Amino acid sequence: MAEYDPDNIFGKVIKGDIPSHKVFEDDDTLAFMDIMPMSRGHVLVIPKTGSRNLLDAAPQVLANLIQKTQRVARAAMAAMEADGVRIMQFNEAAAGQTVFHLHFHILPMYEGVALKSHTGEMADADELAAHAEKIRAEL
Amino acid sequence: MAEYDPDNIFGKVIKGDIPSHKVFEDDDTLAFMDIMPMSRGHVLVIPKTGSRNLLDAAPQVLANLIQKTQRVARAAMAAMEADGVRIMQFNEAAAGQTVFHLHFHILPMYEGVALKSHTGEMADADELAAHAEKIRAEL
Repeated sequence: MAEYDPDNIFGKVIKGDIPSHKVFEDDDTLAFMDIMPMSRGHVLVIPKTGSRNLLDAAPQVLANLIQKTQRVARAAMAAMEADGVRIMQFNEAAAGQTVFHLHFHILPMYEGVALKSHTGEMADADELAAHAEKIRAEL
Repeated sequence: MAEYDPDNIFGKVIKGDIPSHKVFEDDDTLAFMDIMPMSRGHVLVIPKTGSRNLLDAAPQVLANLIQKTQRVARAAMAAMEADGVRIMQFNEAAAGQTVFHLHFHILPMYEGVALKSHTGEMADADELAAHAEKIRAEL
């Protein structure tokens, strides 16, 4: 497996070089809206420590990350009035990983609504900002 | 959200009332082959403590579970000579949850091979046993 490259897009989000619609932040963790959501309210949760994916992450980083993911998933489900929530995490390109900084996807799910594929189409920024605000209010 | 019902199929696997192709077991955690694999080498990792899904799990249970999931994911990827691995976890029926005991899916992924859908068709028991043995050997 390749080494972690700190010059990836999420590394830049952590440094603030790229803006994001933040949902949660503390010393170790950042959660923000996916700009190409696969479902309404799609959030990404990432550690501030660099690792390529789950396979090379420190166990303590994973423990913290899944606990923060739980908190944000509960908030996203409540805020978006979703019927369920999927957690997904991809390792390596063959598994669908496109950004090589560990991240958990939180996908609110709605009765009868299938996941959208990652089309590369960006969501409306105002809508993402509104979703981020609703989810923050539930945290 | 409904309460945890200990009379679910994974509860019976933990008690040994239903047999499984075990990959890993300790005091807190059990990992075994999914009998309707969505990819070759599909493993489920579950806590022995009962919770319906990630939403109602104790944070410490989640921390332990993701760390065990990491170990098994690495072993599954190596044993199956996979090109990547997906981690998935479903909460509530609208998200695809069918067994209401918290579980993480470990899905080895192969270049150019899509995930199979859960058709309800059982895999060959000898093949599952062979996969479990290969993965155990990597742990």
